[in-house]
Amino acid sequence: MDPNAVRLLLEAVRGGETGIDEAMAALRDLPFANLGFANVDHHRALRSGFPEVVLGIGKTAEQTVAIFREIDSRAQTVLGTRIPADVGAALQAALPEVAYDALSRTAVLMRKPPPPVGKRPIYVVSAGTSDLPVAQEAAITAEVYGNRVERVWDVGVAGVHRLLHRRADLESAGVIIVVAGMEGALASVVGGLVSRPVIAVPTSVGYGASFGGLAALLGMLNGCAAGVTVVNIDNGFGAAHAATLINRAADGA
Amino acid sequence: MDPNAVRLLLEAVRGGETGIDEAMAALRDLPFANLGFANVDHHRALRSGFPEVVLGIGKTAEQTVAIFREIDSRAQTVLGTRIPADVGAALQAALPEVAYDALSRTAVLMRKPPPPVGKRPIYVVSAGTSDLPVAQEAAITAEVYGNRVERVWDVGVAGVHRLLHRRADLESAGVIIVVAGMEGALASVVGGLVSRPVIAVPTSVGYGASFGGLAALLGMLNGCAAGVTVVNIDNGFGAAHAATLINRAADGA
Amino acid sequence: MDPNAVRLLLEAVRGGETGIDEAMAALRDLPFANLGFANVDHHRALRSGFPEVVLGIGKTAEQTVAIFREIDSRAQTVLGTRIPADVGAALQAALPEVAYDALSRTAVLMRKPPPPVGKRPIYVVSAGTSDLPVAQEAAITAEVYGNRVERVWDVGVAGVHRLLHRRADLESAGVIIVVAGMEGALASVVGGLVSRPVIAVPTSVGYGASFGGLAALLGMLNGCAAGVTVVNIDNGFGAAHAATLINRAADGA
Amino acid sequence: MDPNAVRLLLEAVRGGETGIDEAMAALRDLPFANLGFANVDHHRALRSGFPEVVLGIGKTAEQTVAIFREIDSRAQTVLGTRIPADVGAALQAALPEVAYDALSRTAVLMRKPPPPVGKRPIYVVSAGTSDLPVAQEAAITAEVYGNRVERVWDVGVAGVHRLLHRRADLESAGVIIVVAGMEGALASVVGGLVSRPVIAVPTSVGYGASFGGLAALLGMLNGCAAGVTVVNIDNGFGAAHAATLINRAADGA
Amino acid sequence: MDPNAVRLLLEAVRGGETGIDEAMAALRDLPFANLGFANVDHHRALRSGFPEVVLGIGKTAEQTVAIFREIDSRAQTVLGTRIPADVGAALQAALPEVAYDALSRTAVLMRKPPPPVGKRPIYVVSAGTSDLPVAQEAAITAEVYGNRVERVWDVGVAGVHRLLHRRADLESAGVIIVVAGMEGALASVVGGLVSRPVIAVPTSVGYGASFGGLAALLGMLNGCAAGVTVVNIDNGFGAAHAATLINRAADGA
Amino acid sequence: MDPNAVRLLLEAVRGGETGIDEAMAALRDLPFANLGFANVDHHRALRSGFPEVVLGIGKTAEQTVAIFREIDSRAQTVLGTRIPADVGAALQAALPEVAYDALSRTAVLMRKPPPPVGKRPIYVVSAGTSDLPVAQEAAITAEVYGNRVERVWDVGVAGVHRLLHRRADLESAGVIIVVAGMEGALASVVGGLVSRPVIAVPTSVGYGASFGGLAALLGMLNGCAAGVTVVNIDNGFGAAHAATLINRAADGA
Amino acid sequence: MDPNAVRLLLEAVRGGETGIDEAMAALRDLPFANLGFANVDHHRALRSGFPEVVLGIGKTAEQTVAIFREIDSRAQTVLGTRIPADVGAALQAALPEVAYDALSRTAVLMRKPPPPVGKRPIYVVSAGTSDLPVAQEAAITAEVYGNRVERVWDVGVAGVHRLLHRRADLESAGVIIVVAGMEGALASVVGGLVSRPVIAVPTSVGYGASFGGLAALLGMLNGCAAGVTVVNIDNGFGAAHAATLINRAADGA
Amino acid sequence: MDPNAVRLLLEAVRGGETGIDEAMAALRDLPFANLGFANVDHHRALRSGFPEVVLGIGKTAEQTVAIFREIDSRAQTVLGTRIPADVGAALQAALPEVAYDALSRTAVLMRKPPPPVGKRPIYVVSAGTSDLPVAQEAAITAEVYGNRVERVWDVGVAGVHRLLHRRADLESAGVIIVVAGMEGALASVVGGLVSRPVIAVPTSVGYGASFGGLAALLGMLNGCAAGVTVVNIDNGFGAAHAATLINRAADGA
Repeated sequence: MDPNAVRLLLEAVRGGETGIDEAMAALRDLPFANLGFANVDHHRALRSGFPEVVLGIGKTAEQTVAIFREIDSRAQTVLGTRIPADVGAALQAALPEVAYDALSRTAVLMRKPPPPVGKRPIYVVSAGTSDLPVAQEAAITAEVYGNRVERVWDVGVAGVHRLLHRRADLESAGVIIVVAGMEGALASVVGGLVSRPVIAVPTSVGYGASFGGLAALLGMLNGCAAGVTVVNIDNGFGAAHAATLINRAADGA
Repeated sequence: MDPNAVRLLLEAVRGGETGIDEAMAALRDLPFANLGFANVDHHRALRSGFPEVVLGIGKTAEQTVAIFREIDSRAQTVLGTRIPADVGAALQAALPEVAYDALSRTAVLMRKPPPPVGKRPIYVVSAGTSDLPVAQEAAITAEVYGNRVERVWDVGVAGVHRLLHRRADLESAGVIIVVAGMEGALASVVGGLVSRPVIAVPTSVGYGASFGGLAALLGMLNGCAAGVTVVNIDNGFGAAHAATLINRAADGA
Repeated sequence: MDPNAVRLLLEAVRGGETGIDEAMAALRDLPFANLGFANVDHHRALRSGFPEVVLGIGKTAEQTVAIFREIDSRAQTVLGTRIPADVGAALQAALPEVAYDALSRTAVLMRKPPPPVGKRPIYVVSAGTSDLPVAQEAAITAEVYGNRVERVWDVGVAGVHRLLHRRADLESAGVIIVVAGMEGALASVVGGLVSRPVIAVPTSVGYGASFGGLAALLGMLNGCAAGVTVVNIDNGFGAAHAATLINRAADGA
Repeated sequence: MDPNAVRLLLEAVRGGETGIDEAMAALRDLPFANLGFANVDHHRALRSGFPEVVLGIGKTAEQTVAIFREIDSRAQTVLGTRIPADVGAALQAALPEVAYDALSRTAVLMRKPPPPVGKRPIYVVSAGTSDLPVAQEAAITAEVYGNRVERVWDVGVAGVHRLLHRRADLESAGVIIVVAGMEGALASVVGGLVSRPVIAVPTSVGYGASFGGLAALLGMLNGCAAGVTVVNIDNGFGAAHAATLINRAADGA
Repeated sequence: MDPNAVRLLLEAVRGGETGIDEAMAALRDLPFANLGFANVDHHRALRSGFPEVVLGIGKTAEQTVAIFREIDSRAQTVLGTRIPADVGAALQAALPEVAYDALSRTAVLMRKPPPPVGKRPIYVVSAGTSDLPVAQEAAITAEVYGNRVERVWDVGVAGVHRLLHRRADLESAGVIIVVAGMEGALASVVGGLVSRPVIAVPTSVGYGASFGGLAALLGMLNGCAAGVTVVNIDNGFGAAHAATLINRAADGA
Repeated sequence: MDPNAVRLLLEAVRGGETGIDEAMAALRDLPFANLGFANVDHHRALRSGFPEVVLGIGKTAEQTVAIFREIDSRAQTVLGTRIPADVGAALQAALPEVAYDALSRTAVLMRKPPPPVGKRPIYVVSAGTSDLPVAQEAAITAEVYGNRVERVWDVGVAGVHRLLHRRADLESAGVIIVVAGMEGALASVVGGLVSRPVIAVPTSVGYGASFGGLAALLGMLNGCAAGVTVVNIDNGFGAAHAATLINRAADGA
Repeated sequence: MDPNAVRLLLEAVRGGETGIDEAMAALRDLPFANLGFANVDHHRALRSGFPEVVLGIGKTAEQTVAIFREIDSRAQTVLGTRIPADVGAALQAALPEVAYDALSRTAVLMRKPPPPVGKRPIYVVSAGTSDLPVAQEAAITAEVYGNRVERVWDVGVAGVHRLLHRRADLESAGVIIVVAGMEGALASVVGGLVSRPVIAVPTSVGYGASFGGLAALLGMLNGCAAGVTVVNIDNGFGAAHAATLINRAADGA
Repeated sequence: MDPNAVRLLLEAVRGGETGIDEAMAALRDLPFANLGFANVDHHRALRSGFPEVVLGIGKTAEQTVAIFREIDSRAQTVLGTRIPADVGAALQAALPEVAYDALSRTAVLMRKPPPPVGKRPIYVVSAGTSDLPVAQEAAITAEVYGNRVERVWDVGVAGVHRLLHRRADLESAGVIIVVAGMEGALASVVGGLVSRPVIAVPTSVGYGASFGGLAALLGMLNGCAAGVTVVNIDNGFGAAHAATLINRAADGA
């Protein structure tokens, strides 16, 4: 609904040229989304302080640089995920302030630090060294969103005592993100140890009957510890986004 | 948005108690869906002349009878699908005008015939006798929606000459619904013979590697004849609904 | 059946050299397909005005150029789908009139515009930018077939208000093609908003548990909005072909 | 490690009968879990105020009654899930204070109300009437855990405007649990509308290519709205447990 | 094409009332299948001497009896497969000559023995006692079709020496049908021992990861012995039908 | 090879009636399996002292009783697995010495205790109470085979400290059988704690995305602890059989 | 069993140095396979006249050339399948008599033509041009084995009249090999038209929901025409091997 | 728990500065894993004499060389698996004592031979030449762990007599590792022939419906010979590790 159209309508009502019933019918037929709906969206974006996110899959270096420039011109933080190394290099050549992390393939352009989120840190726990790219994507995303992040790398269930050692630390977390491939059992073990919200990220790490992460995904969904929820395979970003929403709750947001 | 609220607002604008800008802000913040949106829905339902549809799965006889009564009280046609035999009997005991078809497990309560839809008939073609429940659900649905329906039963691809025999008939259809289980190849054969829109319904008929209709579904999706679209396994109702939308186009609707 | 053979047989009947029963037996044993059946096919092709379609998968540049030349010599429109970039370049080098679209990997050689199809436009709606190659294949195919096409890009369900904004437009379509990867929910949302035929195209866009488009395919097949039919994953061409058959119905074809 | 054993050891150290090195070796070899670890667990259970949960699958009426009695004797709340109707009747015959809900198959024995959890309510949103058993299991679980619960039933994506109507309400939630079968798209739509944590529960509702909830599960995992996490098919209990952990965060727990 | 119509046309040609070109056009437009095509089918059925086959799935006792009666009235052998025990009893009550085999759930009504097929016997080899229903369906079908049948029961690969013992016998077969569930390896072992055509029938016998016969099916398709072909899970009838076609070849048919 | 035939042949050689070359040719052509091969089998059965095993699936009470009687007449131990309750009752009515265990559905007829197997016990560890039927099948089988068995019930990974508590016990095992459904992670945890052979049995316990034990199976196959091997879903018997073969090794067998 | 050992034993029997019983025991304990079993194999190979087959997958050019040379030195025909183009070139450089077919990736070294097999030709029927590599592998294999081969290319079910045109030809075949990807329906159509043995070869041709040939495989296994058997996806060689075994039957072999 | 902290605590107890109860509380609250738990691990590693294992997947040449150097500096044997050829070359350039096996992609750095394990050899049996990489990984691993290894290559079930020939040898094994792709039936055949523990390794060798090893995996899990256990697809290392644990049992370890 064009604001000018509404204004004209209301002026006609005020001037008596348009009757009440007629005005109501006109309003009813206007596309509702123009009632400032987009503004609501805009406001929500501004209020959240979240960065804008660019998914690098299927974009050329030129396209990615252009998108980063455009968002940057609105003076907003940009987070690129799944950015290939060559695109990362192109970004840094064009925008030297871009921080590119080769392990997680994330690129961050942040002009000012985000407002801090949450009273407690987000823990990112990963099972094996091959899970680190996904774990690091989660950790960097959570940091860019304003959370404090603690990394606990390489605590697979085959050496479960290493995990027990960190129980008290984990209990201090606002949210715990568990990243694991193969059979994905780490999520259950962590979920059974602590009483904090746990978000499990299955990874496509493995071979044979891991079927590209399916085994880990099913394992996490069937885990016997209540309180664990799951995101898509390799979706470190999504886990961090969800964890941020949870962590903000403690701020009374 | 409560119409009364809008009326009061407009009256305040007319009376000058509320300024234009203030009124615009108020309108912007009202829930848009109350801007008569439900009416739009209502209008669409009235305009379409479509019956209301009750999915019988998971409903008791008592619940189903109650729903039929309630819709009937609004003097509208009711189509029940997947109605078990005992629920069908209960419906007929309570509402003797209900027509229950045991083969397709459909129950119809129609006080007046629907307005006719389409200049051409919808053909429902089925491969084997075991596919008839689904084919009949499609045929009855299409009739209740107002289409003229032609049934072509039992023309599997293993006896493809029986199908060729009916080519001219099929070409005269507005839409053709092909219902087939096992390998589902009938859809491709029909789609290759004629130049009319074909909607394919895989059925769960079969055993062994049919995997509950998966083989037929994949066969139909991979069919080599362009112009064939597919609905869910055993979804005769959905095919007829889609076919009706297509068939109405010729009416200039 | 060789027409000459039939002619000779009929002349023999006329001349009395062959008896009626003998002639009937001879006719019965002739391969029926030669009874002008191929002509019927030919006539249908001519009548439809559809272009000939070349699937680029597994063909060399030389083969593709040769096929385009051969069809072009019959003065007919050629539509090539899934044409790799290097084959597209070879086509344009050999036949400068070829229009190659790198996004959708389609190549079109059209000597004269197609006869217009349908009284209403076909809408092609896509969920994300990564779905554009498939959406554009559908759009170009529909245009080459003679339809008027409206493109509505980038209206995923996570921002469903953008879609609601276009509801009246969508309702004016003859057919709507919805192209979406990931969970494919856009098809249900569109199908629930409007009362026009909707053809859903799942795309292989996604990662992890999207399993190459399986998640989107299953989502679309299980969609709760009746009236939606589905084609194979990434099959933009097939959706446009089916949409054209539907759109022609309004012409009284 | 038997506390008495530790006491004796320490006394021997104090008395000088056992050397420091010898005592350290003894401690090292004792089973660590006896170092009060079970107490920690116990403490956590007491601190959380969570009820004890009994999964009814594969238990006889006699077994279930016995377990309820045993927990009740410790004056603790019991929540039984997936309790068949006949077991529910046996429970109520033995323990008249048990509240059995036939829709969700939950049985609750609660001697005193739980301490309230969370500053905001948990919203449970379900797509269709067939999803209600799972949605209700989530809602009752959340209530038994001490959360305030708001139920929003029957808002499938095919009628997405009904959902938009409730946007402001949903935004006021501490956590939103979305329960949906078929294509499971409701989770994405809700996740795109609001900025609260969303837990998605796929249900096994559907037929054909829903494959027992697989389609909904994949749809939810691939959803395009960040911030949505997923639990196992039909796991209303697990969603509520996770939601409670999240909702507690706002209490500064 | 109605023979009378052709006769009239030819008479008109003979009488000079219809020109040659006109007659050719008329013939071209007649439905080809009426050119005695059905007769060809009929002739093929008579020539083959094969019984008519009734698939019992989804048919009531009344329907099955009626179909048996109808075929019997044409003095032809009837083979019913997948006939439940109660339907078998009804058949025998109505038609005392029906032979019902409870193990394989086949019912045979044979008024005269079939003409013998093949110079060599068909061997039916089964792996375990649980595979016997399918093996027996194959054996009875092959006998009803006129083949000599040798049964070799219970020769699983875990006791492969029992099979080697019968190598010379197996080599004397015209065709070997191998029926096996679980891992289905028997087909490869037999195929590697002898140089006769082998048709493998996977059965749904098994549990756990047999997934209803999928493991056996995949095993047989991937078998390392060339010369083995496969039919659908539990399809003893189909294997015997195919084996008969092969066995007839030696008769110079 | 009939021993008498060999005897006659050798006598003919000794008597000079048959030449050496002729005798060698005769021997070469005899079926090898008759060279006492069956005896070898027999000897192995006697030597192993293993009971004969009857799989109850698909057998009537009468058949099962008859098989038990027949084996019993050879004075050998019989182990029946997957024996339904009513068949178990029929067994005990006919053979009062049969011990029937309703939980695991095993029936044992043992006239004398088996020779002891292994220097160490077999541990059977199960995750949840619903896994007990499979765990108990494994335990009883192992006992009937002559192993000493230790049962460790109910030590799921969500309470991993309960398991750590038993580490020293587990390390004393000859073999450990781990029985777990849902995500099956217990096998990895046990395999990582101890350095004994671990056999993992996935169970079909679970719901939703457990897909009848597939999640547990994949989890166990992808487990990150080396030294774990896996048997079929619910195959407690097979695990115990394999464990016995391993445990015997320590006897120098 | 070393022939010399048997000879010595028999001589000792003849000489009376070894008793009959002693000799029987010795024979019983000898490894049976040495009783000329390998010779039987050798004889079967010679008798069959089949070429030796080399699977090219995973072999280097050097290895493949060496194997071809070795077999060639025994003056036997060699058939290489799945030979990459560069290996084919290396073969032809080393052995100029090798015939390499780039389409099917087969390499043949044939010093003298094979003895003819079968009284009738083998028909190889393929659905689309993309199926030709597999169809050609089948055709070349069948020719190298000595069969007469007829090729019927490009007769997909979407143009089923082209196939009907060839019905009489197909009926004259000894065996028909049907090669088809996508939905694989061609096998059913051919199997329904003719009464000859049909071997179906699914191909991995297709995209999206063809899942690497799974759709075609399931379609062929579920085909409604009895008499069709199936081999592995893309296994043109296996189909031709099986077809040859069938075709030989007519020779009284 | 820092040993120094424990020492200080015990000294304080001895000196009377800390009471018994206070000390017990302190001990209870210390992280248990520091109670020398890591030492236990260390001791177990030393006691087992097992090499440290480096999984090459996803590591650069530099990283792999660094890890080898680091472990080597602790004078321990290193086994690298899945080491690509170029990384193998880099290893050998840096550490000339590394033995790299290109077939199995294993790299071994062994300064002194391992203590011998087991009284009997481990047999590694493989079905086809394409299975050799996995079989060789198993064989080399078993050797590096100290087992005596016998290799039996190329004994597929299609030539089962070759296997029977080796029965006595196989019976002499401590453990048998069976490596097979395609249908994986070799494991059942071996398991049925001998009474030794059999570990089956499915391989991803095959094409079409082998689905990357799934067919072999399912075949092995469903094998009809008890006593066979299974590891992940292509997991030769895991099989050898498990076999070593079994083989050690005979040493009274």
